[in-house]
Amino acid sequence: MTWRREKMGQILYGADYYPEQWPEEVWLEDMKLMKEAGVNIVRLGIFAWASIQPEEHRFEFGWLDRIMDLLAENGIAVHLATATASPPAWLTHRYPETMNVDVNGHPYRHGSRQHYSPASKVFRQYCAELVRKIAERYKNHPALFMWHINNEHGGHLQKDYTPDAITGFREWLQRRYGTLDELNDQWGTAFWSQKYSDWEEIGPPSTTPIAFCNPGQELDFSRYMNDCLLELYLNEYRILREVTPDVPILASFMMEFKWLNYYEWAKHMDVVGLDTYPDPRLGIPVSQAMDFDMLRSMKDSQPYLLMEQVTTQVNWRRNNAQKKPGQMRLWSYQSIARGGDGILFFQWRQSKAGAEKFHGALVPHSGDVNSRVYREVRQLGEELQRLEAVVGSRIKARTAILFDYENWWAVEMAGKPSADIRYREQVMKYYTALHELNVAVDIVQPHSDLSGYDLVLAPTLYMIDAATADRLERFVESGGTLLTTFWSGMVDRNDRIHLGGYPAPLRKLLGIHVEEFDPFTPEQTSSLQMVDPDCSGDYSCSLWADIIRLEGAKALGVFTADYYEGYPAVTENAYGKGSALYVGMFPEQKLADKLIRHLAERLDLLPDILVPSGVETSVREDNGKSFQFVLNHLEHPVVIDLKGRSCVDLITGSSFAERIELESYDVAILKWK
Amino acid sequence: MTWRREKMGQILYGADYYPEQWPEEVWLEDMKLMKEAGVNIVRLGIFAWASIQPEEHRFEFGWLDRIMDLLAENGIAVHLATATASPPAWLTHRYPETMNVDVNGHPYRHGSRQHYSPASKVFRQYCAELVRKIAERYKNHPALFMWHINNEHGGHLQKDYTPDAITGFREWLQRRYGTLDELNDQWGTAFWSQKYSDWEEIGPPSTTPIAFCNPGQELDFSRYMNDCLLELYLNEYRILREVTPDVPILASFMMEFKWLNYYEWAKHMDVVGLDTYPDPRLGIPVSQAMDFDMLRSMKDSQPYLLMEQVTTQVNWRRNNAQKKPGQMRLWSYQSIARGGDGILFFQWRQSKAGAEKFHGALVPHSGDVNSRVYREVRQLGEELQRLEAVVGSRIKARTAILFDYENWWAVEMAGKPSADIRYREQVMKYYTALHELNVAVDIVQPHSDLSGYDLVLAPTLYMIDAATADRLERFVESGGTLLTTFWSGMVDRNDRIHLGGYPAPLRKLLGIHVEEFDPFTPEQTSSLQMVDPDCSGDYSCSLWADIIRLEGAKALGVFTADYYEGYPAVTENAYGKGSALYVGMFPEQKLADKLIRHLAERLDLLPDILVPSGVETSVREDNGKSFQFVLNHLEHPVVIDLKGRSCVDLITGSSFAERIELESYDVAILKWK
Amino acid sequence: MTWRREKMGQILYGADYYPEQWPEEVWLEDMKLMKEAGVNIVRLGIFAWASIQPEEHRFEFGWLDRIMDLLAENGIAVHLATATASPPAWLTHRYPETMNVDVNGHPYRHGSRQHYSPASKVFRQYCAELVRKIAERYKNHPALFMWHINNEHGGHLQKDYTPDAITGFREWLQRRYGTLDELNDQWGTAFWSQKYSDWEEIGPPSTTPIAFCNPGQELDFSRYMNDCLLELYLNEYRILREVTPDVPILASFMMEFKWLNYYEWAKHMDVVGLDTYPDPRLGIPVSQAMDFDMLRSMKDSQPYLLMEQVTTQVNWRRNNAQKKPGQMRLWSYQSIARGGDGILFFQWRQSKAGAEKFHGALVPHSGDVNSRVYREVRQLGEELQRLEAVVGSRIKARTAILFDYENWWAVEMAGKPSADIRYREQVMKYYTALHELNVAVDIVQPHSDLSGYDLVLAPTLYMIDAATADRLERFVESGGTLLTTFWSGMVDRNDRIHLGGYPAPLRKLLGIHVEEFDPFTPEQTSSLQMVDPDCSGDYSCSLWADIIRLEGAKALGVFTADYYEGYPAVTENAYGKGSALYVGMFPEQKLADKLIRHLAERLDLLPDILVPSGVETSVREDNGKSFQFVLNHLEHPVVIDLKGRSCVDLITGSSFAERIELESYDVAILKWK
Repeated sequence: MTWRREKMGQILYGADYYPEQWPEEVWLEDMKLMKEAGVNIVRLGIFAWASIQPEEHRFEFGWLDRIMDLLAENGIAVHLATATASPPAWLTHRYPETMNVDVNGHPYRHGSRQHYSPASKVFRQYCAELVRKIAERYKNHPALFMWHINNEHGGHLQKDYTPDAITGFREWLQRRYGTLDELNDQWGTAFWSQKYSDWEEIGPPSTTPIAFCNPGQELDFSRYMNDCLLELYLNEYRILREVTPDVPILASFMMEFKWLNYYEWAKHMDVVGLDTYPDPRLGIPVSQAMDFDMLRSMKDSQPYLLMEQVTTQVNWRRNNAQKKPGQMRLWSYQSIARGGDGILFFQWRQSKAGAEKFHGALVPHSGDVNSRVYREVRQLGEELQRLEAVVGSRIKARTAILFDYENWWAVEMAGKPSADIRYREQVMKYYTALHELNVAVDIVQPHSDLSGYDLVLAPTLYMIDAATADRLERFVESGGTLLTTFWSGMVDRNDRIHLGGYPAPLRKLLGIHVEEFDPFTPEQTSSLQMVDPDCSGDYSCSLWADIIRLEGAKALGVFTADYYEGYPAVTENAYGKGSALYVGMFPEQKLADKLIRHLAERLDLLPDILVPSGVETSVREDNGKSFQFVLNHLEHPVVIDLKGRSCVDLITGSSFAERIELESYDVAILKWK
Repeated sequence: MTWRREKMGQILYGADYYPEQWPEEVWLEDMKLMKEAGVNIVRLGIFAWASIQPEEHRFEFGWLDRIMDLLAENGIAVHLATATASPPAWLTHRYPETMNVDVNGHPYRHGSRQHYSPASKVFRQYCAELVRKIAERYKNHPALFMWHINNEHGGHLQKDYTPDAITGFREWLQRRYGTLDELNDQWGTAFWSQKYSDWEEIGPPSTTPIAFCNPGQELDFSRYMNDCLLELYLNEYRILREVTPDVPILASFMMEFKWLNYYEWAKHMDVVGLDTYPDPRLGIPVSQAMDFDMLRSMKDSQPYLLMEQVTTQVNWRRNNAQKKPGQMRLWSYQSIARGGDGILFFQWRQSKAGAEKFHGALVPHSGDVNSRVYREVRQLGEELQRLEAVVGSRIKARTAILFDYENWWAVEMAGKPSADIRYREQVMKYYTALHELNVAVDIVQPHSDLSGYDLVLAPTLYMIDAATADRLERFVESGGTLLTTFWSGMVDRNDRIHLGGYPAPLRKLLGIHVEEFDPFTPEQTSSLQMVDPDCSGDYSCSLWADIIRLEGAKALGVFTADYYEGYPAVTENAYGKGSALYVGMFPEQKLADKLIRHLAERLDLLPDILVPSGVETSVREDNGKSFQFVLNHLEHPVVIDLKGRSCVDLITGSSFAERIELESYDVAILKWK
Repeated sequence: MTWRREKMGQILYGADYYPEQWPEEVWLEDMKLMKEAGVNIVRLGIFAWASIQPEEHRFEFGWLDRIMDLLAENGIAVHLATATASPPAWLTHRYPETMNVDVNGHPYRHGSRQHYSPASKVFRQYCAELVRKIAERYKNHPALFMWHINNEHGGHLQKDYTPDAITGFREWLQRRYGTLDELNDQWGTAFWSQKYSDWEEIGPPSTTPIAFCNPGQELDFSRYMNDCLLELYLNEYRILREVTPDVPILASFMMEFKWLNYYEWAKHMDVVGLDTYPDPRLGIPVSQAMDFDMLRSMKDSQPYLLMEQVTTQVNWRRNNAQKKPGQMRLWSYQSIARGGDGILFFQWRQSKAGAEKFHGALVPHSGDVNSRVYREVRQLGEELQRLEAVVGSRIKARTAILFDYENWWAVEMAGKPSADIRYREQVMKYYTALHELNVAVDIVQPHSDLSGYDLVLAPTLYMIDAATADRLERFVESGGTLLTTFWSGMVDRNDRIHLGGYPAPLRKLLGIHVEEFDPFTPEQTSSLQMVDPDCSGDYSCSLWADIIRLEGAKALGVFTADYYEGYPAVTENAYGKGSALYVGMFPEQKLADKLIRHLAERLDLLPDILVPSGVETSVREDNGKSFQFVLNHLEHPVVIDLKGRSCVDLITGSSFAERIELESYDVAILKWK
């Protein structure tokens, strides 16, 4: 099944829509404004359970029928939610076992959202009943375009400690390990006398004051919770697929939360979508760029959706800055530039009441269509209608970053030599270097096929299995270039050490032995000198130093301080037809930039069109057509040298040859002639 | 009924007295020292429940009879407590339902204080029984002067999550809203599917991780808890009023705690009293001055009591500085200067044991009557006896600050554009400017009659109802001057947005539309230029910037930085016979001072006698007599120009004409001849 | 009974050994490596409960028999643990009452360690059964050398709030106080109406928001918990003593935890041992030196064991620095230098799995015997074999520091004038001064015999009973010199004030009256001038200032700032044949150093051999033989003047006369000829 987007043939533009919060007379005004603003899709019903099923045995579909019809009449597609994101008070009151319980055993209370137990059999049953009712009712409705299941899984509810969850965990463990002997071995329960002699003895992970919990138990509970929430999703997915086999199904992702392995989830979705709220105070939203690249990579470069963002400001930071004029438009275009085909917002009309009334919207509290923000909304809506040609085009990358959710969990568990290693920060260091150079990059999985890539970066790959180590070895052997960094190759999938000298499974490939390591305080730094002629110079590093013994590799850089002065800090090992680099400390950005530029030049990965720092560029391609996106994140205009190629800007329709000048915060989408 | 104070005709001077902590031989020594120190009142029995009723069916009044008699013999009035502040162990042990329960469902334990459930019916019943016993026993006792109910309500116990409290909350909501439809509408439960279909489904407010609770529910729970604690007070009040209709009744206030709306409580008191413990490291206790002004305003300028302060140092700060020589006397006089008629301390004799043994007292652990502190205590006692003329005199103010407890709760709830707005800090900014100029000010309620004032300040009046907006409009229309500030006029009494462009209910009056706002980080500032000739200059601001569109008002100042450079920052709108000013950011103190001086001069609000910065002055009046208080908070002497008027200083008895010189930390009370 | 160490006649060298974590083929490799490394002892079985008793009615001793035999064959002594440190899952699952409960009433879960309730009768019964089984089985085993009970009592489990613990607390109180009247008096329950009328009403200490708990209750609960954990220890001790009357018994101490009074525990041990993990970033481990001195003092200078340390880095700090080359050896020798006869590590072979796999060990994950760390391990093992002469020799000191665990608890309870007084920090200030001068010091108890000392330091002796005050008075009277400091002599053993002017029980001895005190903020300092000719100069102080009235003492220094400018800051009082000094503020280190040097010179306490700052020296003696330890903590070599005495270095065997040169981080043990 293909995503219906292509039926529509245009960039999707829209928002969450909560008509249940407004009297019906406002709905007509909404229709008028939506069309005026270029809105072609709304997401409906996310928090409508209590409105659809106000009491256990009473369903009220009338209001939803009316708004569905109205949207259909106005040509606005509906991304219809299953309404299970926030169960109604009658459900949690009458069936208290459906309520989540926190790590201390305190049951949640009604009055916020996502207060359910995802493991609850009773909860899943009520979800299933509701979803079937909704699916049957609207399966043939002309407005129905896509299904949205629940909402932001794992965003406001990440763990479950109900009896149902604990039982579920035990069953999950039985399926995973078969026998208690195997579990005891994999968890290393010989340590601290933790051995289990009965499945019933096993519970969720636990600490005691000044002592850590079993890492295997902690990792598996995280895996179980991911699977438990995924099962909650699939509980609805199966019904929707059965009733409406042709309607695309998805749920939304939030990349700042680490507890769901979205790569696994994406397999069960027809399209993927992201909720993204970068702080407007950021210069360039590099982190959002990485999120888009990751999202795109989850479905093999198939276009994705920006599912939620805000026009102005959110209300959940300590201080919620306003987006400056032009910033919303610029950052919206980043989603298209990196491979998306739709831009949606939370939400259409700013709420009058409730916990998110100060969260921005397309229509502000004033209702003022002449306000600065609404004018920008309308402008963007108009522009997007000119981008039909872009729809469906794709990004192609020869560089990959290897990213592993379970490694993320493992790296940041307690009891490590350093509690300050943040996996995303490690990855971002190198992603930032690639972004600065506008090198296209996919963000792939440990078990992904790497054969299409020239360069693979795998920062801090602490947890690695033999198969992945082997895959990396074959990648380099056959000519690839690999860069990995300190705190890689340490443990297996159950956090058990790979014995035999760090980083044991990569030791041969990298040609080094990490004999010791020295973690730093946050205030501490060390220094190194790059001896490689291509990126020579003195640099500082923070967080960590490896004490490396060369076993075939050569030193590209050496430490110039501390007791390991003169020891290798960066190494490279020729292996087969390729090469494997190792960075044995956390470099300042300047050095990461230099290393990546060095490799990008060597492997000819730099883009044709060169842009100044602060300008983002990318290329989407489709059947020989190629669209060059240029985004000026700077506070001043820039001139881009087009190297004599002629093009037309899809947004303005203007043609350019020699060069193009872009205002501060402006965007161009160049179609080469 | 009038407060018995007038029978006594002198400034009250005394302390909490806990004879139950000492052997009876110490009592006689106490009587001697009290008289020597000028003490004419003690507060007795606050924590005496376990001493009066050591077991459920045994009362021991003998000791209390003896000390009451002894005090009467020595001419010391008794402010007798109802002893309900800390229930005895037998009560909470035998009736565990009388124990409070915290937000996580953990019951309190015995061993501190205020561990009761104010909602508990059983607890109220035992209180009532005890209070009736005490009232009946001492109703005709010659020492009985006033009643003190419980203690520091809401100081150490602010919320209650017992089943009784939850039931009470539901009943309170039924009384407030009548129907669930009304409640659902007022709370905006259409948001996040929070709609209730049965009263039993409603509980106390609740969050989930990374999600806020319903603001209407949170506000109403705060209202309910205020009412619940007030009902606990009234439970005792009704009995005391019935048994002793002529004895004044009060409880003590603590202005740093925001959860009790003392304006409501004051209606049920014959006199109001304040517990105040400013940090001795403060230069001038401006915040204490505001507390006194607020206290005075609660009972229409009727003299109040400083109910508790400390001679030396407290024991609950992280580091508890000692009061410097003279500081206790100076800060005590501030209470008289701002309209009080009594000064009491916690406590008479410093405890030998327990949690507050390091809290200062009149008689220190050493018992040393020659100690520096005790000498100051005795001196103050002597001086106060010369102030009979002042008793009953009142402050008159033509300026008012509008202060709203429920607004305080609402402003500081979660989910706002900025979590750093502190309501009292906003009010203090302008109060400080008034205090610096020694402009007398009342601190009134949103529904107060404003007709007697020339200037009304209403900083950050986020929550406002239509009636208040209308009252302010009529105040300006008929010639008043109003100053309000950013984050005003946003929501109704249930935290629902006033639609129609901020600040909707004040938009016409202020002649502006706040189209956007931009909250700052704590490190961030912006800048503005005052263009008004009366207070021109360049200033900085912090916390917040409004982006204002003028709709009739003129700009007194404009921003000089950020994307709103050139936009109005301070505006003034002529309206009817008056004028309405708006401050669209959080100004540095210098600018607030300048704005207030500008208005005070324009409206002729400055006092006759001008004093240097650091000197506090105020005037109390009574039947044509007028007393000018002058307090030198500086570390050096000052000279005050009396403008040729002759006066006598009530403290020293000395006469002055041209000028008076005041030593560092010294005080004068000038009676004009 | 004497410690079996003497049978062995050499310095013990070894580690924790967990063969249950490894396949038996690794055991043989272990034996080979142990002998090669000079290991002569291992501690076995600490976390082996689940391995020994995998199910309630099944014991598996086979593996333990085999490893015991193997160790015996290889001449390695076994410090055999009772295996009770971490109960198996079947026990806590089947008998949930054996699980600890935290202060909020949450039961612990399985999956970490020390999750048991020490008060649980059922738990103690299962411990007893296991211990008897182990003792009977190995009582005659040739490898058995010492018993280790449980592990790190109080390290990961400090309190117990189970019903068993609460009942136990009540019984403990009944034994301590006999009557409720006595308890009410000692706890001062007249305060805040806390009086108890039935033992059943008493529970663990409790606070309410913004209010403190009863200090007597809090102190007694700490005492009870110490006794409860000690009883858990004795529960096993009695069985071991009965079954093996000649085998030494001990448990390990951790000086950073304050909740166990190790002086009391040491009485029930045949030898004492310390687990110590100073941060490798420290220059000199002065705090570890004090721990060794304290440990030595607990058993009257009998040699102790360094029971646990790490070769490289731990894994429980935020950032766990690597020990530099030479640092492990240098810091190990500190334990011998200060009176120890054994050095053990956690652990022998670095774990492959579990919560402590990143904690360093003798054999690293790599198993690499050529690694830097393993080479240092082997070198130290070799060297220690040359130190037979040192075994059993002792330190002699003429200076004592008075240290009181219960005072530690009392000083750091809430509700004090300053929450920033840390008892150990106060003691360390003066210990550091002594250490800098290499003055030998014992760390004794309030009730210790002081007659052998010339100088006694008693910093911040807040809690003091009459007997101790009297003992100090007699010590000075008969010629001793005492130095005590601010915040001394305040309360009795139940935290009740000594009335009569601070510091009442020491007022006569010190010849002063502390009339007031003024605690500082952390940012605040004051200044003073020493007027005594022997240590004149200007100094700063922090934290606190006493306002002192001289009553016979003379001022050695006076404050030069604040309102107490000119008041005494340091005083000395001639009393009997001796002298009593008082330091009325928290001096900068320079002043503490100067004061201590002044006293050490006056009392002739300085060592014969003088070393530069940064070099540590000490003397152990045995039957006329004397061993001078010299440890160079500096990063550069030093030369020590031997004053013409000849000696031989036990480590190198080299002879020296005039002087000895020591490399950075090097150590010499000089035997005088």
